[in-house]
Amino acid sequence: MHAYRSHSCAELTKENVGDTVRLSGWVHRIRDHGGVLFIDLRDHYGVTQVLCDPDSPVFTEVEKLRSEWCIRIDGNVKARDESLINAKIPTGEIEVFIRDMEVLGSAEELPLIVFGDQEYPEETRLRYRYLDLRREVMQENMKLRSDVVASIRKRMWDKEFREYQTPIITASSPEGARDFLVPSRLHPGKFYALPQAPQQFKQLIMVSGFDRYFQIAPCFRDEDPRADRSPTDFYQLDMEMSFVEQQDVFDTVAPVIAGVFEEFGGGEAVDAPESWPQIPYAEAMLKYGSDKPDLRNPIEMQDVSEHFRGSGFAIFAKLLEQEGTEIRAIPAPTGGSRKFCDRMNAFAQKEGLPGMGYIFWRDQGEGMEAAGPLAKNIGPERTEAIRTQLGLGVGDAAFFLGGKPSTFERVAAKARDVIGEELTLTDQNRFAFAWIVDFPMYEADEESGAIDFSHNPFSMPQGGLDALTSDPLSVLGYQYDLACNGYELVSGAIRNHKLEIMIKAFELAGYDEAEVRKRFGGMVNAFQYGAPPHGGCAAGIDRIVMLLAGTSNIREVIMFPMNQRAEDLMMNAPSDPTSDQLMELGLRVIPQE
Amino acid sequence: MHAYRSHSCAELTKENVGDTVRLSGWVHRIRDHGGVLFIDLRDHYGVTQVLCDPDSPVFTEVEKLRSEWCIRIDGNVKARDESLINAKIPTGEIEVFIRDMEVLGSAEELPLIVFGDQEYPEETRLRYRYLDLRREVMQENMKLRSDVVASIRKRMWDKEFREYQTPIITASSPEGARDFLVPSRLHPGKFYALPQAPQQFKQLIMVSGFDRYFQIAPCFRDEDPRADRSPTDFYQLDMEMSFVEQQDVFDTVAPVIAGVFEEFGGGEAVDAPESWPQIPYAEAMLKYGSDKPDLRNPIEMQDVSEHFRGSGFAIFAKLLEQEGTEIRAIPAPTGGSRKFCDRMNAFAQKEGLPGMGYIFWRDQGEGMEAAGPLAKNIGPERTEAIRTQLGLGVGDAAFFLGGKPSTFERVAAKARDVIGEELTLTDQNRFAFAWIVDFPMYEADEESGAIDFSHNPFSMPQGGLDALTSDPLSVLGYQYDLACNGYELVSGAIRNHKLEIMIKAFELAGYDEAEVRKRFGGMVNAFQYGAPPHGGCAAGIDRIVMLLAGTSNIREVIMFPMNQRAEDLMMNAPSDPTSDQLMELGLRVIPQE
Repeated sequence: MHAYRSHSCAELTKENVGDTVRLSGWVHRIRDHGGVLFIDLRDHYGVTQVLCDPDSPVFTEVEKLRSEWCIRIDGNVKARDESLINAKIPTGEIEVFIRDMEVLGSAEELPLIVFGDQEYPEETRLRYRYLDLRREVMQENMKLRSDVVASIRKRMWDKEFREYQTPIITASSPEGARDFLVPSRLHPGKFYALPQAPQQFKQLIMVSGFDRYFQIAPCFRDEDPRADRSPTDFYQLDMEMSFVEQQDVFDTVAPVIAGVFEEFGGGEAVDAPESWPQIPYAEAMLKYGSDKPDLRNPIEMQDVSEHFRGSGFAIFAKLLEQEGTEIRAIPAPTGGSRKFCDRMNAFAQKEGLPGMGYIFWRDQGEGMEAAGPLAKNIGPERTEAIRTQLGLGVGDAAFFLGGKPSTFERVAAKARDVIGEELTLTDQNRFAFAWIVDFPMYEADEESGAIDFSHNPFSMPQGGLDALTSDPLSVLGYQYDLACNGYELVSGAIRNHKLEIMIKAFELAGYDEAEVRKRFGGMVNAFQYGAPPHGGCAAGIDRIVMLLAGTSNIREVIMFPMNQRAEDLMMNAPSDPTSDQLMELGLRVIPQE
Repeated sequence: MHAYRSHSCAELTKENVGDTVRLSGWVHRIRDHGGVLFIDLRDHYGVTQVLCDPDSPVFTEVEKLRSEWCIRIDGNVKARDESLINAKIPTGEIEVFIRDMEVLGSAEELPLIVFGDQEYPEETRLRYRYLDLRREVMQENMKLRSDVVASIRKRMWDKEFREYQTPIITASSPEGARDFLVPSRLHPGKFYALPQAPQQFKQLIMVSGFDRYFQIAPCFRDEDPRADRSPTDFYQLDMEMSFVEQQDVFDTVAPVIAGVFEEFGGGEAVDAPESWPQIPYAEAMLKYGSDKPDLRNPIEMQDVSEHFRGSGFAIFAKLLEQEGTEIRAIPAPTGGSRKFCDRMNAFAQKEGLPGMGYIFWRDQGEGMEAAGPLAKNIGPERTEAIRTQLGLGVGDAAFFLGGKPSTFERVAAKARDVIGEELTLTDQNRFAFAWIVDFPMYEADEESGAIDFSHNPFSMPQGGLDALTSDPLSVLGYQYDLACNGYELVSGAIRNHKLEIMIKAFELAGYDEAEVRKRFGGMVNAFQYGAPPHGGCAAGIDRIVMLLAGTSNIREVIMFPMNQRAEDLMMNAPSDPTSDQLMELGLRVIPQE
């Protein structure tokens, strides 16, 4: 017989009754029922009930067992009494009477109970991650993650993509976030950087003539931690194709993403890729206040400025006299009660706005009545025009925000989310996708007015070189995101593969040619030798798994995550270097005060 | 029609004759045959012949094309004349008459010609890697690597392993080589390290109750560069299993490795896993002088000391009076000529030994004669006894090395290789595997005599705690390698999962308990909470691909490798940090003289 097991703990059924078996696993629970000991023996695959009474030759040893001891047992499979059958587990029809036992690994008193649902502080969970990971929910999350990544790989292979690995110890490539640096020992004083993304390398792979690249790529950004972000490294499905336009990328990636959500979405509805809308960035901001709208929520905001211009509602009327201002309505079907409207108004105040005006429509016996202070101020005609524009009726409400859109869009988006959820308009059992397209290439700094890239500087501007002679803020890029349920899942672009357009694009953002050649020398050089048109995207693996696992904490889907101070409590990182190490690297640590 | 192509450059056949098609790719070659221009248009998939004569509307533009320009063409598919059919390529029956053309990316004068087999200095190849990679051999190498990794993944999934990702920015874990360090910005003065291997994490994954783990894992070692080693990062197939013994690991991994070699070995014979011998380390050193023997070579060395003890060959006779010495014979079937024997003797001298004694046997008309100075010195009886022991006859030779084995084993192993190759005894068309087992746990420093781990300190000593009370140098570990054609492909062990054995094992190597708890705190803590028995191994991906690609230079199978000074010439790494970066990290660079 095998040294440790003849079967896993999920394998024995009534067919094995009478067999002598060997199992190994952990003592999940141990109970004493009047001198008979019941052990739930757990391994990665399942649980088997093991029992022991004073007739067993190992009774005294079994009595000493405690939770989470790792043991090997030999015993005989018996059928359970009809009344004791547990239909919920595959081994529920049998139990194993223990005849021999070996303690493979005993356990000290546990800082964290594996059995049950007790909550522990995250610091405890991370310090004793090996215990935390034994809990069923974590086993399932990790298996899910592994299976999702495997499924993505298979789907990409099926589309004739090959996975190529790009360097991890490489050059600094300023792409918005902060690099992690790695000091060089062979070249003291010089540093490598860990890649924020394989952006430049995947473009170089295209220039090298490989037609379709992907990689489940580790990415490194030295960012300040956040709940839905790993403070050090994260993984993305990185992909790139040559000789393609934007729609080709969509047609390639959408079935991969949709397929994964169908496979692992637990039966929730997944919008078919052909039905994913392509929403221009400007439209998304107007309708949803966000470039990652949650389309499970049917609410679409509308510009209702004309109804307030010169109206009796002085605050809005005056606002509209300033340039760049607008009044936007958030329709709230079924939200037509003062209680709800007041709650939403309070919500907006909590979010830092003066408040959110509203109108709601109720049945007054002899017809519909528009209620709320706003309606009174602007009068019935304008109120009715608003109602008609928004397509609302009795029992509905609308909320209004005014000013420069940038001042209220964030709150408007949040209000739309809250309204959708509170009024149960948002379909909770659906994955709703939308491509957001036509992102502006540039944005102006709010204070200085300085022009900079709004997203990826390597994207191709729509209209090419010619477009770059007009107002930078009007230039759109072949740049796109995929939004799902309010999250940005994918981000990508058709790249700028023409050196003269790239130089000009950077010039508009204030970088001269010498600077571009210095910072992106590898790519600039490569583009001089027959660069093909190419484009691609990257999808956040952690975020996809979070959505599928139904968690909003990224650490629930990472095996050994850092805490939010970027520390590994289990392994004790970061830690002090030895003076030999510093010497070899030619570095000195500046004492901190 | 698609903006860039209706077909790839490998797709058009006689069936397409008459079609109007669109192709994109690179100008591989361009030839002018009396005013008719022939372009070999190349993409990732193949080559299509494009022709252009003065009747084409784009003749003047086509005349300007140069090698490696990236272009899009429209044209009509025509059948080639019977006499011009090229059966070697899929598109060899047709050509495309060009009607329209667009330059997608022009090229400057090339520092490296893609077409043909011209050799370039490695520095040029790495600096212009995107051109180097367009060469057919590099395209094939990269595809091979990608396909090998994909095949390994599929084979591991089939065996119910899941891939789990372990941290890359983590704690320093001294495992023999030097760590790459990563300074922490949030904790100035403290450093993370990049993992030399996921050794500790994969063991923690087992303690966490995951039964079967694998990962195509990036590993980082700050080592001095070598031809067959990447100076920064490399990839390994890392795997681990719980509740297993050594043979279980062999039974799991061998079919994966054998399968990959069968799939990608180009038809060369692959030894069946059931036939892979398990050779104890001591035996491997005796027979092959190496723990990674090339078993395609049938030569096995033998200890022939007894024939020289007290013999007339004074040098060996005297040597044998010292403790720990031995005379070893390398039999060389068919090597029985003075010319060959002298050449091998010279080889040994070049390798730093005084020489290599030999005997060879020749037909003297009235019987066999043993020739060579050694035979004369020891006399016919001893000579004959040696011949009988080695099983040699007329036309064969034997070489002799004496002393402490450690002084000559390296040269003996090399001599065995050279003899095998020169005498064509080594089967060049075979992948020959052997498990090397029973590695010693400890070794003594040649000079100080200090005891240290000879390999992985986390391996389980054979005999457990009891074994550690005897002479450390006699303790064997459950530690193993897989050798293939003279390379170490795989290395692994059954791990030491018992804390008290681990503490004792480290004590023998001079580390006290406090030190162990400090250096391996994460793992030591984990082993207190029900650790299962476990074991696994790691296989070098780069090395497997090198063997399959038939190259001995690791940079031929890596997309963007560093040069041997650990520099990336294309991306300019490592480079100087900015003073802001150093400030944020709390570091100062010590000026180098």
